[in-house]
This record gives sequence, C-alpha cells and structure tokens, in this order.
Amino acid sequence: MDTTVTLAVDAMGGDDAPNVVIEGAKLALDAEPSLRIMLCGDESAIQELASSHERCIAVPTTEVIGMAEHPAQAVRAKKDSSIVRGCALVKEGQADGFFSAGSTGACLAAATLVMGRIKGVKRPALGVIIPAYDRPVLFADVGANADCKPEYLVQFAKMGAIYMQAVMGVAAPTVGLLNIGEEDTKGSAFALEAHALLAEQLPAFAGNCEGGDIISGAFDVVITDGFTGNVCLKTIEGTSKVLFRYMRDALTSSLKAKIGSALVHGDLRALKAKLDPDQYGGTPLLGVKGVCMVGHGSSGATAVKNGILAGCRQVRHGVPQRIAEAFASVPDGPSQGKEGGLPCS
Amino acid sequence: MDTTVTLAVDAMGGDDAPNVVIEGAKLALDAEPSLRIMLCGDESAIQELASSHERCIAVPTTEVIGMAEHPAQAVRAKKDSSIVRGCALVKEGQADGFFSAGSTGACLAAATLVMGRIKGVKRPALGVIIPAYDRPVLFADVGANADCKPEYLVQFAKMGAIYMQAVMGVAAPTVGLLNIGEEDTKGSAFALEAHALLAEQLPAFAGNCEGGDIISGAFDVVITDGFTGNVCLKTIEGTSKVLFRYMRDALTSSLKAKIGSALVHGDLRALKAKLDPDQYGGTPLLGVKGVCMVGHGSSGATAVKNGILAGCRQVRHGVPQRIAEAFASVPDGPSQGKEGGLPCS
Repeated sequence: MDTTVTLAVDAMGGDDAPNVVIEGAKLALDAEPSLRIMLCGDESAIQELASSHERCIAVPTTEVIGMAEHPAQAVRAKKDSSIVRGCALVKEGQADGFFSAGSTGACLAAATLVMGRIKGVKRPALGVIIPAYDRPVLFADVGANADCKPEYLVQFAKMGAIYMQAVMGVAAPTVGLLNIGEEDTKGSAFALEAHALLAEQLPAFAGNCEGGDIISGAFDVVITDGFTGNVCLKTIEGTSKVLFRYMRDALTSSLKAKIGSALVHGDLRALKAKLDPDQYGGTPLLGVKGVCMVGHGSSGATAVKNGILAGCRQVRHGVPQRIAEAFASVPDGPSQGKEGGLPCS
Repeated sequence: MDTTVTLAVDAMGGDDAPNVVIEGAKLALDAEPSLRIMLCGDESAIQELASSHERCIAVPTTEVIGMAEHPAQAVRAKKDSSIVRGCALVKEGQADGFFSAGSTGACLAAATLVMGRIKGVKRPALGVIIPAYDRPVLFADVGANADCKPEYLVQFAKMGAIYMQAVMGVAAPTVGLLNIGEEDTKGSAFALEAHALLAEQLPAFAGNCEGGDIISGAFDVVITDGFTGNVCLKTIEGTSKVLFRYMRDALTSSLKAKIGSALVHGDLRALKAKLDPDQYGGTPLLGVKGVCMVGHGSSGATAVKNGILAGCRQVRHGVPQRIAEAFASVPDGPSQGKEGGLPCS
C-alpha cells in the first residue's frame, strides 16, 4: 500500500465554494485510498465531511481572502484565512501539499511567504499542463511573475523539466523558449538574452518555440515570462471557447446540420472533454517548499478532485525535493527588496 | 466610376511565387475594374500577364530578397529587388500602395526605409484583422517592433482606430490594451505604464483586454508590443489549426461519426472559411507614407487577390493621409540611431 499523502485543502476558494470544493474533496478521498485531507474553512461548512469521513480532518478558520483583495497585503493581514492556514500546515510539516481554487495571487503570495522559496530558486513559477496535439506540454510561467529577468527563465525551464520527468514520466523532456521566430537571431532583447543563457546552461534546451507550436506539442516544456505566458494561456482558452461556440452555431444552422450534429454529438463531447483543462485540475506552483496546486476559480467538483489528485501525485513523486536537489548548488540570490521573490499581484 | 487605384505588386514574394501571385493579381484585376497593377519581378515571369492585360504594367526587376536574408541589410543591398522597387514606386508617386507575400521583415524594412515613416509616427505597426466572434478586430503590433516603449502603444492605438474607422466603417472604435487582468492595477511595469498613458491621452481607450478577449471581440482594436502580439497571433492560428485537426480525428473515429460528419461537412467548411485569415489577405503596415500590405508566405491566389483588394480599399479610404492628419501635431521624435524607426529583423 502507498504511504499516506496529506493535503491541506482550502474549502473557501472558488466561485462555488465551499460546496463544490467539499464535493471535490470527497470525490478525491474516494478515488485515492492513501489520501488524507485537512480541510481548512468555516467550521459550519467543513464539519459535515470531516465528521463523516475518517481521512478528513477539520481545520476551522475564521477569515477568507476574497478574489479582489491585494494578494500580499491580504496574506499578511489575514493569518487565520483558509489560504494562509493551509500553507502554514505545509510549513509546519503537518501537510505535504496545499490545494486551493481561490485567488491565484493570494495562493502564490501565501505559498511564497509562508512555505518559502526553495533555496536557490529566485522566483517560483506557475506552470500549466496544455493538452497539446501530440503530448501534454508544461507551459510556464503563466502569471506568477509579470516582470522577469532572463535568468529566471533558465530556472523555470529546469523546474518544468523536473515536473515533466517526475509526474508525467517523460524521460528526457525538451525545452522550448517562446519567441517570435524559429531562428536563434529572432526576438526581443529579453528573448535573445534568455536564449543565450538557455543555450549555455541547459542541455535540454531545444530552441525557440513560436506561438503556434505550444499547442502543436513541439516541445515538452515551453517557457516564457509571466506576462506573455498569462496572455498566451488565456488566448488558447479563449480561442477554443470561441471555436466551439462557432461550431455550435454552424451545427444548428439547418435541419441537415442538426441531424448530422446529433450523430457526432458524442464524439464532439469527447473532444471537448479531452481539451478540458479541468482534467488537470489546476496549475502547479513550482519552486516553493511544498506542493502547491492552484485551481481555476470556476472549478467544478471534478476539477477540484483532479487538482487534489494532481497535488497528491506531485507529493508522491517528490517534486519539491527534486527541485531542491537540483538547485542545491545554486547560490541563493540576495533578497530583492521587501517584495523580493513575491509573485505579482 | 471610381478613380483608378494603382498598386505595386511583388510577383516574387511567397512560397509559391511567382505563379500564385500572378494568378491572384489577375483575379484582383478582374474583380476591381478601377484597379491598375504594376507587377514587379523577373521579366520572364511577369511578361505574360502584363502583355495580356491592359491594366497590368510590367516592372522588370533583377533581384529577389529571400525569406532568410537579414531584412534591413538585404533592402540596402538589393536596390533592384521586387520589394525595394515596389516601395520605390510608391515613394515616387507612381503607385498608391504596395502588396507583397514575401519576407515580412524585408517588406517592413523597405516600407520604412524607402517610403518613409509618416511625420510624427515613432514606429510603424503591423496590424492584423482577427475574425473574432462578434466583429472583426484589429490587433497590433503583431511583429514590427519586438521591443516597444509604452508611448508607441498609444500611437498604435490611434492608427488602429483610424484603420477600423476608415476601412471597416466602425464609427467609434474602442481600444483595449492586452494585459494579464481586467483591473487597472494589473500588469507588468510596461503594461502599467502603457495603461496610464492610454488613459491620459486616448479618449477611445476602454481598458485592459485579457488574452481570451481578443477573439471574443470585446474591443474593436487591441494593442500590445510586437513580441506579445506576434506570439499571440500565432497562438490563435495554432490553436485553431490543432482544434480542426482534433475535430477531423473525432469525426472519422467511427462509422456513425463519419455519416454525421458527412451531413455537417458543408457547415464545418463554411466555418473554416469564416475563420480563414486568407479572407483578409494580409496585414497592413500602419504609419508609413503609403499603403503597404504584407501577405502570408503561404498565400494562395485567393489570399493574394484579397490582399491586393484590401490594399486598394486602404488607398480609397486614404488611410495613410488620415494617419498623417492625425499625427500632424505630434512633434517628430529624434532619430533613434542608424536603425531608428526600423522594424525588428
């Protein structure tokens, strides 16, 4: 039997919290017998699952960080919020990882401030698994660092490759740098500098990746700064959504189309499910001392379940420990001011 | 009857040049009786159309700029290339505009160096029309300037709004700034600075546009730096391509699906055509003294035709003149070194 994995789960995070989170937590417990959940949230909300399930422990909290609050300020002010308490449980060694579908900014701030950065990691990065055509692709940073230095991208690449190796079983992940041309000489000043550093320091570096190559699956890991990454990720999601909307319009435009679409309904549903980011349940924050999975605010119970299980897999494969080993020889950078190493709000 | 519009057309540009370009030029001449084409290219290639069509004039050239050449260097070295000669015809007043499906970098360099920037325009921008859900959207810069200053974005916004007003007939175009959140406080240092300038200087500015909102059609004009814009444009194209590939797989996966897909075939084809960037035939370069349309390297004859006709419409609506009027009061910036105002290579 597998060793028990304990995850702290923020019951208060997400558009439909706490109900949907609690339902997702229950599904995850049912699916994974070696999982233990420490459910953080309003006592009235969490009590029912905790008292009815032996592998669910109630962690009553009195504060909630809202989606619109300034992340770092909220994390500093609300010590008894479900997000801060969840990260503190990881810090104290009571939990192996943390899952929340709440404010991404607050989760990143809490994970960075409370769990802390892994020694040698200059900035944690938010990764996301893209269901690309040929294979799943880890794309990072998708929003933790709006302003990056080229050297951060080398670290994102290393952490992304460790994730793909450990969790997705890719033996030798290839890394692409998001850029505006395939040629080495293409790019902004920032991209050219990042390219040179990657070529020098990262044996897995396989060259530039153009915008269209993220989703075609040309690389296992694609890295960029958090501004470009966030914009691109939302562009992919938005394009898929609009294409499916166009398709729905086209397939209901005539009686013939309606009959045809009834016949292909199941196949299109299966395709939609295949592309559904819910299957991965969230985005891992790489580079902090513990597993941290951030789910989409609109997560349903299945997405919450999948996010918790993905967190569980990261614990089992020792992702933070592997990153710590890989970065052990990197000299820790100086503190960058009071917000040093803190993700953008 | 409309006044004659004369366009210089680069017969040598594109993957299937010169045949496809010549075919497209012929289609454009047939479609638009007031169009005159000055066809620039190898004498042997252009002679047939020029001698058989009274509104086609042969402009024999002896050099060709290849896709892999350094744009500015090639433009300076190859004075008798089809691209440089085409732009020179505009400069000399013999043609009103220029179309090429050749090297984008070389076209931008030639348009900037030969036609010249409009007074007051700091950097020309490459725009593209995105077939968004609710309405066509002008998205710029998609690659002319990999490194931008926030003030350039204010100019891109002004030029984009003029284009949408003049060519697409949008009475009061709204402008969005591509950014990582809707809130005014979100973004990289660059985006925050651009946001502040736009809010101060542009009445049409309507706030931040997230990645998913480009294609949903939330704004008439969406602006960003040329790095992010290029990556995003290719991401939209790549995502559409992969989704259609997935769809083809799904619709041929069973006999039932095959029958259904036969019934919806026409509707899906119509949808694909609707999303096809070929309908717009290319991307306008805004801010140079003359119309300049750059087609995709993979343009077919229809795309070439549409690109030429789109160039023709820009001439008819006086896009460069309108930009010149709007920028007449802007003090012209100092020359930025020897490559000042030159698009990135």
